Amino acid sequence: MKNLIRLWFFLICSQAIAQNNMLVFQSDFGLKDGAVAAMKGVALNVSPDLKLYDLTHEIPAYNIWEGAYRLVQTAPYWPKGTVFVSVVDPGVGTNRTSVVLLTQSGHYFVTPDNGTLTLVAEQLGIQEVREIDEVTNRRKNSGASYTFHGRDVYAYTAARLASKLITMDQVGPKLTNKVISLHYQKPLYTDGKVTGTIPILDIQYGNVWTNIDQPTFNHLGAKLGDPIRVIITNNSKKVYEGTVTYVNTFGDVKEGVNVGYFNSLLHFSLGINMASFSEKYKVYSGNEWRIVISK
Amino acid sequence: MKNLIRLWFFLICSQAIAQNNMLVFQSDFGLKDGAVAAMKGVALNVSPDLKLYDLTHEIPAYNIWEGAYRLVQTAPYWPKGTVFVSVVDPGVGTNRTSVVLLTQSGHYFVTPDNGTLTLVAEQLGIQEVREIDEVTNRRKNSGASYTFHGRDVYAYTAARLASKLITMDQVGPKLTNKVISLHYQKPLYTDGKVTGTIPILDIQYGNVWTNIDQPTFNHLGAKLGDPIRVIITNNSKKVYEGTVTYVNTFGDVKEGVNVGYFNSLLHFSLGINMASFSEKYKVYSGNEWRIVISK
Amino acid sequence: MKNLIRLWFFLICSQAIAQNNMLVFQSDFGLKDGAVAAMKGVALNVSPDLKLYDLTHEIPAYNIWEGAYRLVQTAPYWPKGTVFVSVVDPGVGTNRTSVVLLTQSGHYFVTPDNGTLTLVAEQLGIQEVREIDEVTNRRKNSGASYTFHGRDVYAYTAARLASKLITMDQVGPKLTNKVISLHYQKPLYTDGKVTGTIPILDIQYGNVWTNIDQPTFNHLGAKLGDPIRVIITNNSKKVYEGTVTYVNTFGDVKEGVNVGYFNSLLHFSLGINMASFSEKYKVYSGNEWRIVISK
Repeated sequence: MKNLIRLWFFLICSQAIAQNNMLVFQSDFGLKDGAVAAMKGVALNVSPDLKLYDLTHEIPAYNIWEGAYRLVQTAPYWPKGTVFVSVVDPGVGTNRTSVVLLTQSGHYFVTPDNGTLTLVAEQLGIQEVREIDEVTNRRKNSGASYTFHGRDVYAYTAARLASKLITMDQVGPKLTNKVISLHYQKPLYTDGKVTGTIPILDIQYGNVWTNIDQPTFNHLGAKLGDPIRVIITNNSKKVYEGTVTYVNTFGDVKEGVNVGYFNSLLHFSLGINMASFSEKYKVYSGNEWRIVISK
Repeated sequence: MKNLIRLWFFLICSQAIAQNNMLVFQSDFGLKDGAVAAMKGVALNVSPDLKLYDLTHEIPAYNIWEGAYRLVQTAPYWPKGTVFVSVVDPGVGTNRTSVVLLTQSGHYFVTPDNGTLTLVAEQLGIQEVREIDEVTNRRKNSGASYTFHGRDVYAYTAARLASKLITMDQVGPKLTNKVISLHYQKPLYTDGKVTGTIPILDIQYGNVWTNIDQPTFNHLGAKLGDPIRVIITNNSKKVYEGTVTYVNTFGDVKEGVNVGYFNSLLHFSLGINMASFSEKYKVYSGNEWRIVISK
Repeated sequence: MKNLIRLWFFLICSQAIAQNNMLVFQSDFGLKDGAVAAMKGVALNVSPDLKLYDLTHEIPAYNIWEGAYRLVQTAPYWPKGTVFVSVVDPGVGTNRTSVVLLTQSGHYFVTPDNGTLTLVAEQLGIQEVREIDEVTNRRKNSGASYTFHGRDVYAYTAARLASKLITMDQVGPKLTNKVISLHYQKPLYTDGKVTGTIPILDIQYGNVWTNIDQPTFNHLGAKLGDPIRVIITNNSKKVYEGTVTYVNTFGDVKEGVNVGYFNSLLHFSLGINMASFSEKYKVYSGNEWRIVISK
């Protein structure tokens, strides 16, 4: 009886994280050449029944941090069992490790382990990490090419995994539950101030996204409509100092007014209704940017 | 018997406009971040059997008119029952209405009612308009986010509609057969001249598209090969005055020759064989542009 | 018995090149307007079961050579039977021939015959070429439009072919096994030197791709780690002269070092680890560029 229950549990759990035939591609390849289409062709040669989607291919070249951010920004909205392939791979062809991460949320990530997994590992939880055995999990006759593992290893392995031609076990040896993590400043409340960083811009509209979450922000005790004091520095040099109005959304104020609001990931963000905060004040993103807010 | 016939009619008609599992996304989000992929993940969480396509995500930020144009430029070529999601939404989070429009052509449009529907309502005909009830038709636990209705309301509702999890009735209350319409100058023939506007550019090639249709143009009595006099003004200031040759297609003249021709939507357009009319003469698009043509 | 064997052969062969319901689009339309979506709508109106993919739509306007290159760069990775539609068509509406090419590799290409097929014909082999009969293979009621054969002829015909509504025979009359080919300099070894061209850049990273293949390169007898002398000219004017290190991949050297390596198509290429060779030395691509390498 105990065994039956165990079996039942096992089936429930393994179903929860079973692959679902969906493959999502991310890279820094851009859309101007044939690199993305070559990866998709390889995947469909593995199984024509796969459903292929794109996250983005416009990650700035070599920008591992932004790759990490885009994964955590989107993966939670996808069905469990979805397999993500992320190829931001400045070390291609060297002996950096290639891995598959299965998160506790039931999503798979196939990528070089170079920091790309920093945020999904942290926020979605590590269920299992396996090193890709590049002898068994590599496109046939692709050994002469050293510069396109996205096509020859990652798309190929992800397609075999997503279509259940291989199980997670067959990816390669199990590693300890760790991935390479990029260092970044976590949000912090002290003495009536919240400190954070600017991990990314909301590029299209010029909004500035911080990593300050709602619980940390709430220590300030600010209410909608309150002015919020903001100081932004780049390598300790002050770039912006001013006051923004705390609102739910842009339309709550007139055009041209500076606002603070919670973005679609519920992080504190800065914007101007119908204009670009980033351009106006020359505020950009990255680890060397700090933001301090207070009432 | 009468009732049977009515039922039969009803079945025929409702089939003609039944959803077909196809979802087409349009937005001003760009392709550099995760916003589009978040919407697609939400849709596939509703139903993994949906077929997802993109119209464009490169609508210039907040440009509702261009969003309206792209919808009418493409929707007629799609199968009846296709559901379009269009998110050009500068008023996100305010109390502008969210709607679903079913056109007489059998296409569905899910969007904020902010002018986006101007041209499809006019050219494809309004069959039914419903306001989206955002209590029942909103992604679970998304209430804390005010700035991404594309993900939390529009993609979610469109996916439920396209996959037949809800009917048009279940979208929300029926409105009168009206949508918010942007004003624009219609093409007009008087005294041997046709006046029109420049709603949009054929960006990639630099051609200038007007809204002058063939029946209106035909009042001029021009034949292929005829010279056409063209005057273009911006806010009543003359920008271009000259003569173009009326042709079927670019290849009918030598490189560098100015032509007038009917574009793929059968509207009168200006171009230069193998060059950009727009760049050469600094002619752009929008409501403040007027064009007058004559023989 | 002989007939049985013949039948068996026929079934095997025809299966090898049967269409697989996959349609891949390439064009110089860009992604900012509705042109690509109009083509896809037309295809899905032919058959909702088609699977649609994109190669790229960012071919520079009218650049037939680059269109030819992208096809041969990606088609071999796609399943046999895939139908490619390529629309780089400066001669649209004139009497250039529209064709379908079936290659010996089992891939279909639907395109104007204007040089787009140069490289796939050469490298994948010509099995059969047919002219598209534009009377039978044209979207209904599209005769009034002269400028968008991508939508009215190519997407429509490709969709009918991919979904097996028509056979190759029904495309139109069979032509001789020739396509229009663009002239280019083939790689050549003489007197300790290899001469080639620069057909294309690896745009995203700024690497310079030549058309020098491994067998031709191997005449030099160079080993990994060897310095390679490089001279690059544009219309016989010297643009770059220097030495690069022959490596497998970028990560084999420090940042900023110039390397020569074999790219993902196994052609000799020039790059700088974590920088752009093209930008630094103002080296671009095209038929007027020559490269000479030696030990």
